[in-house]
Amino acid sequence: MVDNTKTVRFGILGCANIARKVARAIALAPNATLCAVASRSKEKAERFAAENGFPASVRVYGSYDQVLEDPGVDAVYVPLPTSLHVRWAVMAAGRKKHVLVEKPAALDAAELDRILAAVESNGVQFMDGSMWLHHPRTAHIQHLCCVPRSANCIGPIHFIHSTSTMAATPEFLASDIRVKPELDGLGALGDLAWYCIGASLWAKGYQLPITVTALPDFTRNSAGVILSITAFLLWDQPNQTLATIHCSFLSHTSMDLAICGSDGSVHLRDFIIPYQETSASFDLTFGAKFVDLHIGWNVKPEEVHVVNELPQEALMVQEFSRLVAGIRDCGSQPSTKWPEISRKTQLVVDAVNKSLDLGCKPVSL
Amino acid sequence: MVDNTKTVRFGILGCANIARKVARAIALAPNATLCAVASRSKEKAERFAAENGFPASVRVYGSYDQVLEDPGVDAVYVPLPTSLHVRWAVMAAGRKKHVLVEKPAALDAAELDRILAAVESNGVQFMDGSMWLHHPRTAHIQHLCCVPRSANCIGPIHFIHSTSTMAATPEFLASDIRVKPELDGLGALGDLAWYCIGASLWAKGYQLPITVTALPDFTRNSAGVILSITAFLLWDQPNQTLATIHCSFLSHTSMDLAICGSDGSVHLRDFIIPYQETSASFDLTFGAKFVDLHIGWNVKPEEVHVVNELPQEALMVQEFSRLVAGIRDCGSQPSTKWPEISRKTQLVVDAVNKSLDLGCKPVSL
Repeated sequence: MVDNTKTVRFGILGCANIARKVARAIALAPNATLCAVASRSKEKAERFAAENGFPASVRVYGSYDQVLEDPGVDAVYVPLPTSLHVRWAVMAAGRKKHVLVEKPAALDAAELDRILAAVESNGVQFMDGSMWLHHPRTAHIQHLCCVPRSANCIGPIHFIHSTSTMAATPEFLASDIRVKPELDGLGALGDLAWYCIGASLWAKGYQLPITVTALPDFTRNSAGVILSITAFLLWDQPNQTLATIHCSFLSHTSMDLAICGSDGSVHLRDFIIPYQETSASFDLTFGAKFVDLHIGWNVKPEEVHVVNELPQEALMVQEFSRLVAGIRDCGSQPSTKWPEISRKTQLVVDAVNKSLDLGCKPVSL
Repeated sequence: MVDNTKTVRFGILGCANIARKVARAIALAPNATLCAVASRSKEKAERFAAENGFPASVRVYGSYDQVLEDPGVDAVYVPLPTSLHVRWAVMAAGRKKHVLVEKPAALDAAELDRILAAVESNGVQFMDGSMWLHHPRTAHIQHLCCVPRSANCIGPIHFIHSTSTMAATPEFLASDIRVKPELDGLGALGDLAWYCIGASLWAKGYQLPITVTALPDFTRNSAGVILSITAFLLWDQPNQTLATIHCSFLSHTSMDLAICGSDGSVHLRDFIIPYQETSASFDLTFGAKFVDLHIGWNVKPEEVHVVNELPQEALMVQEFSRLVAGIRDCGSQPSTKWPEISRKTQLVVDAVNKSLDLGCKPVSL
């Protein structure tokens, strides 16, 4: 029996593929319940509910508005194409619904600021759908990248490298919303680089870089949507760091993250989606030197395993619901942490885009 | 009993630390023998011979010239500071000694061309001391990066990332020859980036990039020597590839190499010096996709182990000696493969240096 005074009641706006994953995450999160789902057609929503085995208690609507009008819905998850985020997130906030929006949060920071102004003025929680930030592995590594420096830290970070690539099918490249300028106009920059930019900022404690520069190997489709992008982020002295990011729909699947400090380094190859659901690992190397004659190393990387009781997307829903319940039941203020993370990520996305428009010139932040 | 008609007889010019490793490699290689060692002072050479347990048959000289005059020496190994390579390699070639020179091959391509002209006109073999190229792991991976494409290939390469970093001690940063402008004036660019540039070229089948661009996070010491450098190499259509390299004396030890193609990827973390001497591994991922709901991957990287009977530096000596013996005993021509690899690497080193001098502008090749 679900205690509705404790659980946060979710409505889902749209039947995107990613909504299947998040619907399951809502079911798995102990403090969340799925109450409603909508598509632009009721038949599609009904098919989606049936295919995903939603319980009969889930209300099925033929328009997004109906979810926003449903007084039994506390929060909405918005997996719509990015171009629709601002409209529906602002409307949801206006109806006092808390907003979990799929990434990229918006097409640009100006749009995101409209969303954030709406959630702030309506006192509702905002979070974007960057699931990996909620994995306990992420917190574990964050302790190793601690600022200021302490024991068991990898030291000041000099270099960060991350990738997010996938070999898209011909069907994806022809018709997926992520390659359509009117839907997800940011293409690989929004869908993939969002993660690499987010990871770079996260590793640097969300200090913004001073400049962002796209590299000349980008690819666009015939409609101008970015299919692959490489860029670098530069943080200046006294803790100079350079982060390279490489994101592509045209390459073999990779999710590499390497963080190299003065005293140690961390390597992951599945930082966005762990290889498996129930545990994840990362490689940690401290104090590596060469043995005498330089014929080997004194240490090999240590594989650190982190067990997670819930999948990262359920942990995301749980954290979001915890904040929503605090607002709803205890009069807490919305957390500014997650909106700020989204906004900084979006600012760097904008800067990469601007650098591309300027012919790969550096863009200051 | 060593059969001197089969083995190649080496003299070593100088008692650098790296000479200890290569002296051992000469002892391990079945077709090589150490015959002579020289320092600028005979006492130093004698101490070096004693400390390294050289047999009494090794002739110990107080000047490099004496090695070149020794008719019992077929080949010299030159571990001297880079600024001295051109002088001693050219002199050695003039005395018909084959030349194995420590990397970086020279301070710039003009100097290297003087060396290569001397070895060519004297009919002797040249090779630089890039040991990792001789590890069987390297050949194994090369088959996976095959051009043109075939089965079991990772497909056209889109992205290459490599690092060569080490946390130098204060003593190193104060007094090592690699931070002295008059000795190894290329600093980290010569000592470390030589490997990353070499690996990028190797992965691309030694096709030169169209442009090379340094990134603005470089560091120089007060004498102007490069202590850290990041750069990218760009190959144009139809097989566009971008390679990023990051090299530093100021960061934790790393030797990462990632090669990402259309269909698969290869990852190493010890590409220059394997963790251990007798075997090495790399991670190979083919056809990675996400499982349904994107809650995991269909495959994890496969760790491929490659056993080597001899350490890579002994394999280098063996390959060099094989070529030398062919010239000496069978009238073969010197191989142009190794000089060409050195020269292409040196051209890209020059281009990175020039890009730095131009304020990180792209330099065409």
